[in-house]
Amino acid sequence: MKQQNILIIGAGLCGSLLALRLGQRGYNVSVYEKRPDLRKVDISAGRSINLAFSDRGNKGMKMVGLEEKVKQLCIPMHGRMIHDNHGNTFQSNYSGRDHEYINSISRGGLNALLLDEAEKHKNVSIYFNKKCKSVNFEKTTALFKDYNSKEEFIEDADIIIATDGAGSILRKSYYLGKKFLFSFSQEYLTHGYKELTILPKANGDYKIHKHALHIWPRGNFMLIALPNLDGSFTVTLFLSYDEGQHNFNNLTSEDRVLRFFQKEFPDALAVMPNLLDDFFTNPTAPLGTIKCSPWHYKGNTLLMGDAAHAIVPFYGQGMNASFEDVVEFDKILDKHKGNWKTVFSEYEKTRKKDTDAIADLAIDNFHEMKDHVANPIFQEKRKIEMALEQEFPNEYSSKYSLVTFNEHIGYREAMLKGRAQDKAILNMLAGGVISPNDDMNIILEKVKTETEAILEDDRIAGLK
Amino acid sequence: MKQQNILIIGAGLCGSLLALRLGQRGYNVSVYEKRPDLRKVDISAGRSINLAFSDRGNKGMKMVGLEEKVKQLCIPMHGRMIHDNHGNTFQSNYSGRDHEYINSISRGGLNALLLDEAEKHKNVSIYFNKKCKSVNFEKTTALFKDYNSKEEFIEDADIIIATDGAGSILRKSYYLGKKFLFSFSQEYLTHGYKELTILPKANGDYKIHKHALHIWPRGNFMLIALPNLDGSFTVTLFLSYDEGQHNFNNLTSEDRVLRFFQKEFPDALAVMPNLLDDFFTNPTAPLGTIKCSPWHYKGNTLLMGDAAHAIVPFYGQGMNASFEDVVEFDKILDKHKGNWKTVFSEYEKTRKKDTDAIADLAIDNFHEMKDHVANPIFQEKRKIEMALEQEFPNEYSSKYSLVTFNEHIGYREAMLKGRAQDKAILNMLAGGVISPNDDMNIILEKVKTETEAILEDDRIAGLK
Repeated sequence: MKQQNILIIGAGLCGSLLALRLGQRGYNVSVYEKRPDLRKVDISAGRSINLAFSDRGNKGMKMVGLEEKVKQLCIPMHGRMIHDNHGNTFQSNYSGRDHEYINSISRGGLNALLLDEAEKHKNVSIYFNKKCKSVNFEKTTALFKDYNSKEEFIEDADIIIATDGAGSILRKSYYLGKKFLFSFSQEYLTHGYKELTILPKANGDYKIHKHALHIWPRGNFMLIALPNLDGSFTVTLFLSYDEGQHNFNNLTSEDRVLRFFQKEFPDALAVMPNLLDDFFTNPTAPLGTIKCSPWHYKGNTLLMGDAAHAIVPFYGQGMNASFEDVVEFDKILDKHKGNWKTVFSEYEKTRKKDTDAIADLAIDNFHEMKDHVANPIFQEKRKIEMALEQEFPNEYSSKYSLVTFNEHIGYREAMLKGRAQDKAILNMLAGGVISPNDDMNIILEKVKTETEAILEDDRIAGLK
Repeated sequence: MKQQNILIIGAGLCGSLLALRLGQRGYNVSVYEKRPDLRKVDISAGRSINLAFSDRGNKGMKMVGLEEKVKQLCIPMHGRMIHDNHGNTFQSNYSGRDHEYINSISRGGLNALLLDEAEKHKNVSIYFNKKCKSVNFEKTTALFKDYNSKEEFIEDADIIIATDGAGSILRKSYYLGKKFLFSFSQEYLTHGYKELTILPKANGDYKIHKHALHIWPRGNFMLIALPNLDGSFTVTLFLSYDEGQHNFNNLTSEDRVLRFFQKEFPDALAVMPNLLDDFFTNPTAPLGTIKCSPWHYKGNTLLMGDAAHAIVPFYGQGMNASFEDVVEFDKILDKHKGNWKTVFSEYEKTRKKDTDAIADLAIDNFHEMKDHVANPIFQEKRKIEMALEQEFPNEYSSKYSLVTFNEHIGYREAMLKGRAQDKAILNMLAGGVISPNDDMNIILEKVKTETEAILEDDRIAGLK
């Protein structure tokens, strides 16, 4: 039997993992990517140079047998390193269990590895500089423009899967086509972001602690930094476009930018002599959440990864969610192979509740990172949870741990349980029912009981 | 000083009330409507022939001095008349206070009244059959097509306000223009709706009880009916497009439709000899929620009513919310007259939280109407709330009453308090803390205390 032709739009992280997996399964896979081959041309240009990589993303690597190779690209980050206005730092680990940490990974390095591995399969072809302009989802064809020859051409396929990111052309075709009811949302935060850099020391060493995700939380804005393998850090400023004393719209002169950093991030400024160059060279980009439904049409076209569910970066789960997409899709393919319509609809049915949840969690964390980290009651909660995880490693996981390290449960379950735990602990702290110095066995019992009561109350009231 | 020229797109309920009010204030107002003049041509065509009109909408009528005239168009509905599968009925009042009821009103009759009143002002002109095709929000001009002459023309104005409904052209121009970050969502329910009719008796009398909103709740679908002044009822079937044994996609033959009604709505069928004609003549329409932000740009263009926030019809608040828009806008105009940019931005800031809330409440009520009405614990809750409202008319209002009859508080406040009350009562019923036969004074005290505790717990946990 002739294998089916699968066309993938977009050779980013999700598309290249999907191509590799479908290649392993023996399909004829063609991938079209609008950008040049990132293995030959540097196309990073100040946007998402590194990413947080954790257990959910690693499921994808295990699936395709790349766990060990990917490990070599990873820099473990055991916790958040918080920097206050005076340059004082304190570390807040991500988990009370030593083996639980997240990693900083180079987007380009990981993408290159996945492309290399995919191309080892003779049945996988990857074409670059070919921009998708529209998808005819009735005919299962896609129109491309070749950026080199400037010519347009149409590709036909049995199946088209769009992994073309937040600006997906297939999603746009669904929206504009109006052939069916297409629910869609794009929600922007009032904040944007800009990438900056802390370069390595002259000897190649890291200028600040290597194994942490650095945060400078300032209430209405924040700076973060993640390490790169070359000794540098990629720094990201999250700041309102037009609110507050300093914002992207009014930070227009070198003088203003310098004064802003001197006041708010003096220790970061001290290791960023290149700040002004970066600031005025790199773009300011928006932070948006995209949700939509349906993700598929007639068993011929499907949205995956950011194309179906773009999220803000504050949980470090964007890439992990996209890799988990491929893993979940692969499982359903095992069950219903041959019946693409069933595969697509079961995939959306089981998956969308989880990608909706991580989208909402990522916005929660935006507020937590810039704000709550400095809030006393949230700090007490964090301390208690850390102690619970240390004393009862098999019995307690914080919301962060449920989302990040409990990859065997879905995001939605992690969200519901994690939010209920947070509510239980915060309310018991505020009401004096528990205090950080109580016996940990008693705290654990109270937290469990109160969490279950909160979940049960919501169930009875018909809330989710 | 020369009065400013205000161009209003859309002469529906919101646009005509706005035109009247701005006319009363002395502005030069031009209104462009794509449809023919509904006072001359019948354009109802099976869609939203009547509507629920209640206290929030009435604030708009008071503002323009039309309260008494509108009363003559109203048919009071004191409660829901529930019809079971066997044709048994029982009435469930909307409130324990006799003076609190909602009204059925003819969309066309009310719209005609508002147009007549608006046109009494020499400074108000209304043009029909003129379809807006796009808005240039940088130049504050709008492109129209005259459906009679087929010619296109451009209108210039100081201010353009789009009250052109869920399919708003200004909103589309904001979205497609990409000149600023425009958050936008359209969410469809899996259900659609179709309008049907119960005609009057030969002598002009009503075939079923006149002063109620009739509901045939069936779990996954429902039928409702609202009275018209001519003795008829407009009936609406809410049904899934493609799920369940019967759905809009498979009700394709007369036989199937008849069997469906015989089984599920026998008493309704008995008074609808015209069912099949209606069913196959009238369109099936989708149920969508639209939210967006910003509602305005540069102090020159503004979205209002459904154009800014379309909601599903299950709280009977769509028109009421749009009229309240005009009232709130008018208040802010008093405060900041002359500074449109401030007017628009303060209007969105104070108003959007409330229109977001009613959108969410309307979806809650979709589930409540088709489902919870038949659920024992929800019935007990309803009984308790009715008794509380009767015994303590000044101390207790249910969520429905807060939303519908407490027009002095915003939708958001009504939602937060109403949801907390629901949760308190349902949980105390489920936990045996209260029972419908307890002393009402004790129940009131417990409900108040528990509601406050729920709100406080949410505040501490940082939830809204």
